[in-house]
Amino acid sequence: MKQLEQRLISLEGKGLGAVPAGCRQADVAGLGWNLLNEDVSLPVAVLSQSRLRHNLQWMQTFIARYGVQLAPHGKTTMSPSLFQLQLDHGAWGITLATAPQVQAAWRNGIKRVLMANQLVGQGNMAIIANIEDADFSFCCIVDSADNVDALGRYFASRGKAIRVLLEYGVSGGRTGIRDQEQEAAILEAVKRWPQAVKLIGVEVYEGVLKQDADVRRFLRHVLDRTRVLVSQSSFAEPEVILSGAGSAWYDVVAEEFSHQDVGQALQVILRPGCYLTHDVGIYRDADKRIHASNAIAREMGQSLLPALQLWACVQSRPEPNLAIIALGKRDAAFDAGYPVPALHYRPGVSVSPQVMADDSAITSMMDQHAFMQVPPDSDIKVGDMIAFDVSHPCLTFDKWRQLLLVDDRYEIVGAVETLF
Amino acid sequence: MKQLEQRLISLEGKGLGAVPAGCRQADVAGLGWNLLNEDVSLPVAVLSQSRLRHNLQWMQTFIARYGVQLAPHGKTTMSPSLFQLQLDHGAWGITLATAPQVQAAWRNGIKRVLMANQLVGQGNMAIIANIEDADFSFCCIVDSADNVDALGRYFASRGKAIRVLLEYGVSGGRTGIRDQEQEAAILEAVKRWPQAVKLIGVEVYEGVLKQDADVRRFLRHVLDRTRVLVSQSSFAEPEVILSGAGSAWYDVVAEEFSHQDVGQALQVILRPGCYLTHDVGIYRDADKRIHASNAIAREMGQSLLPALQLWACVQSRPEPNLAIIALGKRDAAFDAGYPVPALHYRPGVSVSPQVMADDSAITSMMDQHAFMQVPPDSDIKVGDMIAFDVSHPCLTFDKWRQLLLVDDRYEIVGAVETLF
Repeated sequence: MKQLEQRLISLEGKGLGAVPAGCRQADVAGLGWNLLNEDVSLPVAVLSQSRLRHNLQWMQTFIARYGVQLAPHGKTTMSPSLFQLQLDHGAWGITLATAPQVQAAWRNGIKRVLMANQLVGQGNMAIIANIEDADFSFCCIVDSADNVDALGRYFASRGKAIRVLLEYGVSGGRTGIRDQEQEAAILEAVKRWPQAVKLIGVEVYEGVLKQDADVRRFLRHVLDRTRVLVSQSSFAEPEVILSGAGSAWYDVVAEEFSHQDVGQALQVILRPGCYLTHDVGIYRDADKRIHASNAIAREMGQSLLPALQLWACVQSRPEPNLAIIALGKRDAAFDAGYPVPALHYRPGVSVSPQVMADDSAITSMMDQHAFMQVPPDSDIKVGDMIAFDVSHPCLTFDKWRQLLLVDDRYEIVGAVETLF
Repeated sequence: MKQLEQRLISLEGKGLGAVPAGCRQADVAGLGWNLLNEDVSLPVAVLSQSRLRHNLQWMQTFIARYGVQLAPHGKTTMSPSLFQLQLDHGAWGITLATAPQVQAAWRNGIKRVLMANQLVGQGNMAIIANIEDADFSFCCIVDSADNVDALGRYFASRGKAIRVLLEYGVSGGRTGIRDQEQEAAILEAVKRWPQAVKLIGVEVYEGVLKQDADVRRFLRHVLDRTRVLVSQSSFAEPEVILSGAGSAWYDVVAEEFSHQDVGQALQVILRPGCYLTHDVGIYRDADKRIHASNAIAREMGQSLLPALQLWACVQSRPEPNLAIIALGKRDAAFDAGYPVPALHYRPGVSVSPQVMADDSAITSMMDQHAFMQVPPDSDIKVGDMIAFDVSHPCLTFDKWRQLLLVDDRYEIVGAVETLF
């Protein structure tokens, strides 16, 4: 944390107040910015500190109840400060998607990474091989004998070894092997590189499946294959890793993978990414399903809470039922529903933000503007502030190089940087 | 340029080779990276140096032929190095969309900015008012009396003045006044702040219109209103600014706005943003229209050329007609057509990149992956490199904190940073 707190806040960024030269991440809380005082340039992305804490504790409890490990998918936020919060709340490590993401995390103190993709291309292999750190633990995915051979050649030439998980996929899905022929080819390839490629477990991405029963059938198939691999002494380490749930199916994966006997010590690792900030779209829908079907979630009562909001100004009010918002595709995800107007605040006039009636909605977005339909008699004015809830946090985080942490009175109590 | 060349290259970024500590922008060309040698981590965004130069010269000629000025919309690239190239090729200034963009440009040496939006919110007004630089020239848009009063109050309280352009819009469009009642209210408001708010011209955004005739009718209406405003001595400076063409309609705006007499000295400023990199989607379509209808473009012959490509690896090859590409919504625009496979290269085997047949296409994208449909007998393999053309450069640039400049042999001859 020390290292992260020392990082400078950009003088060139958006969604910030007036940043004094030399301002470090740790200094932001002391600047006295308050969102409602207009101390910050809008649009801004804010994270509710209390809601983040709630979500962190919720997942820590959930994971503990199943006796499994958590390696949250860090690609969602790509924020080492948030990774550190996740580790502080019991995470085993961080999942990432690409070699540059791994490098960024490692340079900011993250010591255990599961890369949930194949490591492809010499430029990317070099990034991983160049991490000279005995305390750094890394594994990635393989689903192709060609890739195993490429890894073997490269890592053997560097005198190093790479730890890999065999990925199972579903027909019509994304990556991952589909059949036993592919499985056999990979196991053969692994044997060609006994020093350079170490098979240490199995991984799945079940997120392409839409039905509970399909997910369970797939997970059970993978458990069966894992048992076969154990019986063939396929794994190079005493403890086998079994990882799933890089999606909103983490409850089903926890149910299916926890407390299983595969004939060898088993480390089950779940990889959900979006529980930290949650959302009001795809992840809220998933949360409803989880609370309806998962006994432990039901017992825990409270759900995850949306912790990420975007605040923006009314930019123009050109027609009675139209407000143009200074918030665009450059600021918010738009591929899983548009941002949802949540709060309205008129600086200098409102006492506190007011919950918006659901008679207003974003109807389209451009790069830097959103079109918000309002009732023709709406008194919304140019300069008013609107808070928006979002769907799909991943594609919102990557629009921001820094997000501000707020307390429940909208005091700015910190900043977190992203490294996309 | 000096200042920009001194900026450090991130050690944590994507789409780069192995960056030595302390590497500055000016040092990248000397690192000897070649894209085809796999010296760079894929995916990477590359700009063709020769094509950029072609496009810069094309637009410089076009603008000169009409005797108008160019303030290219910098929001497209948000790259001060590219802004500087545009200024070096005759641009009058840079157009930007938001106050933080203006701040980032000014901090990197840009001295003349037209902000093609209202300046809304005290956080944003503070950013502009805090730019203490007698050599910095700035103006922005107004389309609301409320905003004029807010600007007046704020800039008067700071003992400063702000220069504004009155924006005209179209019914059902985006921002901009729709009728003479709104116009009159704004002119009244401007009179309330004679020291703090200076009306210096007129601006339009015609990009919401789809038909040539509608664009021309709108532009002529705005010219008429400009003449009326001149006759009422509404403008605070001897030369009136008239700006349009923050869209692909720059040819029509040039035709309609150039060489017009409005009764006062007139500076016509066009704001196209995407000519620099062009694309193979919306802007190529527009280019066809321009070459079919604009006499000067026809006379100039050559068209703009797509100068931005994304290179990515084949990540997985799980089914005969499916290749998963390590390129996602985190790397490329996806709102105006998916990236288009253009070139295929097998490292260590291919002599040079081969043009891809059009029997392969991206059919969907996730955050970090693309699904590419290929013929079932395609020999595309895990680890192959594919170059993709893009549509909508704006939403591609903002996925990258740095892009690499390549020569025609794919040597990396530089890097440009973006400041989103």
